Amino acid sequence: MKYEKEETIQTYPGWDDFYNIEVSDKLDFFSRNERLFDIIFAQQFDRTFLNFMCKLSNQIRLLAKTKMGANKLSGLLSHKRAMLYFVQPSTRTFISFLNACHILGMKASEIRGTTTSSEVKGESPEDTIRTFSTYVDLIVIRHPEEGFAEKAAWVLNQTEQPVSVINGGSGPDQHPTQALLDIYTLERSFEHIGGLDGKNIAMVGDLKRGRTVRSLSYLMRNYKDVTLYYIAPEVFRMKDDIKNFLKKHDIKFFETEDFPSVMPIVDAIYMTRIQKEYSETPSNVTDIYPDFHFRKEDLSNIQSHCIIMHPLPRRYEIDVEVDKDPRAVYWRQERNGMWIRTALIAYLFGVDKNIASEFN
Amino acid sequence: MKYEKEETIQTYPGWDDFYNIEVSDKLDFFSRNERLFDIIFAQQFDRTFLNFMCKLSNQIRLLAKTKMGANKLSGLLSHKRAMLYFVQPSTRTFISFLNACHILGMKASEIRGTTTSSEVKGESPEDTIRTFSTYVDLIVIRHPEEGFAEKAAWVLNQTEQPVSVINGGSGPDQHPTQALLDIYTLERSFEHIGGLDGKNIAMVGDLKRGRTVRSLSYLMRNYKDVTLYYIAPEVFRMKDDIKNFLKKHDIKFFETEDFPSVMPIVDAIYMTRIQKEYSETPSNVTDIYPDFHFRKEDLSNIQSHCIIMHPLPRRYEIDVEVDKDPRAVYWRQERNGMWIRTALIAYLFGVDKNIASEFN
Amino acid sequence: MKYEKEETIQTYPGWDDFYNIEVSDKLDFFSRNERLFDIIFAQQFDRTFLNFMCKLSNQIRLLAKTKMGANKLSGLLSHKRAMLYFVQPSTRTFISFLNACHILGMKASEIRGTTTSSEVKGESPEDTIRTFSTYVDLIVIRHPEEGFAEKAAWVLNQTEQPVSVINGGSGPDQHPTQALLDIYTLERSFEHIGGLDGKNIAMVGDLKRGRTVRSLSYLMRNYKDVTLYYIAPEVFRMKDDIKNFLKKHDIKFFETEDFPSVMPIVDAIYMTRIQKEYSETPSNVTDIYPDFHFRKEDLSNIQSHCIIMHPLPRRYEIDVEVDKDPRAVYWRQERNGMWIRTALIAYLFGVDKNIASEFN
Repeated sequence: MKYEKEETIQTYPGWDDFYNIEVSDKLDFFSRNERLFDIIFAQQFDRTFLNFMCKLSNQIRLLAKTKMGANKLSGLLSHKRAMLYFVQPSTRTFISFLNACHILGMKASEIRGTTTSSEVKGESPEDTIRTFSTYVDLIVIRHPEEGFAEKAAWVLNQTEQPVSVINGGSGPDQHPTQALLDIYTLERSFEHIGGLDGKNIAMVGDLKRGRTVRSLSYLMRNYKDVTLYYIAPEVFRMKDDIKNFLKKHDIKFFETEDFPSVMPIVDAIYMTRIQKEYSETPSNVTDIYPDFHFRKEDLSNIQSHCIIMHPLPRRYEIDVEVDKDPRAVYWRQERNGMWIRTALIAYLFGVDKNIASEFN
Repeated sequence: MKYEKEETIQTYPGWDDFYNIEVSDKLDFFSRNERLFDIIFAQQFDRTFLNFMCKLSNQIRLLAKTKMGANKLSGLLSHKRAMLYFVQPSTRTFISFLNACHILGMKASEIRGTTTSSEVKGESPEDTIRTFSTYVDLIVIRHPEEGFAEKAAWVLNQTEQPVSVINGGSGPDQHPTQALLDIYTLERSFEHIGGLDGKNIAMVGDLKRGRTVRSLSYLMRNYKDVTLYYIAPEVFRMKDDIKNFLKKHDIKFFETEDFPSVMPIVDAIYMTRIQKEYSETPSNVTDIYPDFHFRKEDLSNIQSHCIIMHPLPRRYEIDVEVDKDPRAVYWRQERNGMWIRTALIAYLFGVDKNIASEFN
Repeated sequence: MKYEKEETIQTYPGWDDFYNIEVSDKLDFFSRNERLFDIIFAQQFDRTFLNFMCKLSNQIRLLAKTKMGANKLSGLLSHKRAMLYFVQPSTRTFISFLNACHILGMKASEIRGTTTSSEVKGESPEDTIRTFSTYVDLIVIRHPEEGFAEKAAWVLNQTEQPVSVINGGSGPDQHPTQALLDIYTLERSFEHIGGLDGKNIAMVGDLKRGRTVRSLSYLMRNYKDVTLYYIAPEVFRMKDDIKNFLKKHDIKFFETEDFPSVMPIVDAIYMTRIQKEYSETPSNVTDIYPDFHFRKEDLSNIQSHCIIMHPLPRRYEIDVEVDKDPRAVYWRQERNGMWIRTALIAYLFGVDKNIASEFN
């Protein structure tokens, strides 16, 4: 894994220059031997990769059902160590990644919270990341600062013994493993009806600030004939950058505030949290936009195969009574996050072939 | 492990109705295939189960003494994952459960502290628990709210893939694994003199608020001819509910404030922390009730086989000098907590038979 | 491992008496069967031990490079459990020890932060330590209080089933595993030029308060013909206790404020953080003593084999541009900390011979 130091020094531009390169032009920096090495942007995933991740996740899920299979999995990376560096708290994503490590037998160190003692002593973030890389083989980063995970990977890729970085969510835009789990949930749910190609998908709620619906929209480029329905109040409409992207890639989309009219015609409804300026305690019912909620009675208004998704946590957007309907897949979606993260880590360490070989 | 969803929906009453059912009438809800599935109340333990737990703990303790045995144990649940959800801090119980997991090779995720980030985002406690259940195979809960662990189990038992819940202490009354370790300590200490049946046990200190002495009193129903001596100042006397329970089950008990008079006639002395209204810094010596302490000189006043127990942590109730006397078993009692929790987890996953088979 | 209780009680003096014994006279208390049992002071390390640790670390490092070797290592202590009790936060040392445990397959429980819930309930520090010892096989302690780790070992060595204690840094003076990793880094860097004997070493910065340079100076007693150069501003000069120690052991040393004059003549430069009274935010450039920094241009002023060390974290003392020079070994030094701690733990549990046997 060691590579030429001299060459590296010349190859990598300075951070400010690098950061401003178009995403599509810097993907090579995060690959190695024709494989993704760092997982930073959802844009790194093409259809081949997405299909591969879904297949690998299925295999892992199947193996995990038996003790023998589970033990096989937990021996795959028992000699590897991960660091979960969660500067921004996120219980759900943290626990999901941690259990993905556990499934593969990987030992994990964790830092949860806003500061480390070294930062208190004045260490630079780059030095902190480099320190972690001296101890472990993989760093998963959750950080409030846009571009932090990318910078970490950029720093490490210039060292003698770089380790892989996975972006567990940084800043307002990128959360690539969430996008992966959403794709996996859609593909898995539509397994017997031709997969995601050709489906109609409604995205509901705060589309303006919703990181998940934005990433998922981008990834639709990889699928054929998908139609998107953006259902949001005026103030939370999807931003132009995404809409321009869709137009450029000939992806059909419609915008409306009329949720009920869309319900019967879609194959998936992706609900998101919606709330006036993220107010913690809405002062009245209009703050929570009830027209963009999914209620128990709406179950009779959707197709028998239409799935209901939500990135969770939810507040008021979906009635608890909806949970018992088989079309409510958000809990499964959450579990899919663990499976796809397991698949991703297995892939990064090249043990995906050991998993695949169980199915020959 | 999957069971019929439709049936479930009809079987389970709403939470408020359920919560008010008599404990004895709801035990079935926490069992499955004639085995305990969730560990919520000390009332779930009958003599057969208690004996079985003691025997299993002995076997585990013996296996753990050798590298081969310890490795056997740590392979038993290496494919399973636990979540330790300790909303109410409790270092001792937490570390005890964590090491029980470690002994069985189980991977553990932990949440320690009062809030998770999802709760901050407005997630309901039920959704939080359900989230955990999507990632792990067992949830251990410590919570300040009475009935919280029970509610968690009630919620999960209505889902498609429920996982076991262990109550690691919730609210003022229930801490079933503490009761188990106390029983185990008594049985183990009296192994060569006929076990717990027929013994005299003094319980000393704050009997009114002491969760451990209350649970232990309840469990005496399972043993023959035990006599209890309640030794407490007026303000901290055992409450009527326990005394009525003892009367109903013909269990002899005496109440007194005269500790020295009881010392020579009992087989076990169960000390508890005692302090005026749980004041953190007692302002004078009467706040700490010195008449209900056990001092070094008291060692000559008790029988040669009389054991001294304490749930720990201690403050002033037992002189540190007492620790060196072989009859002071509170450190062993603490360690017994780890063994019995290991046994309990092994039982919940049905690997108790793998342990027993080592002793055929 | 059980030993006679009565004998113990008579052997151990009270803590206050014990604490005031000369360090050299109490080393036996922390040994057992002619092996170190607790790691409390750097003074416990003699040349034989230091050489052995370096050799063992090399072996571990080599084994860890292959999956087969790494799996061999992670099976060595898979039946053992550690507690990392870090009352004083120290991310770096914590993660280093945790990963050392992980390399050997040891399960670790952790307490990070200033208080445990039991301490809140009024438990004495001795009882807290004793509690940990009931659950685990090794306790690593980081504590702000001088002598805390020593006291913990003193307490446990009087119990029936003592477990080993490693001092992970307590108080202003002792941090023995840091000293070990510094020695290992020096020996490893000079492997092909005769090892540490006969070398010239500059120590730069805050020598007065710097725990690492003080410990390292002490350990020079074990090496032949080493010459030390102390480079510090007047206010941060090395204290007399160390200088007297060096004189007593005939170790040559020089003091100067002229860093550039020393650069060309030394084999190693040990940089340390330097700052006016540890001010977190220096108000001007003189607060950070730029004359005692190492800059990129200084690289041309040192020998081609001269290594640059730093205990990290760094602030302003070394330019980031220096990192890419092969002589900058501080990141490797950090990683060496993990290897030497792994070696130390392996030694404490007597599995060093299992490692050595791989190299026969």
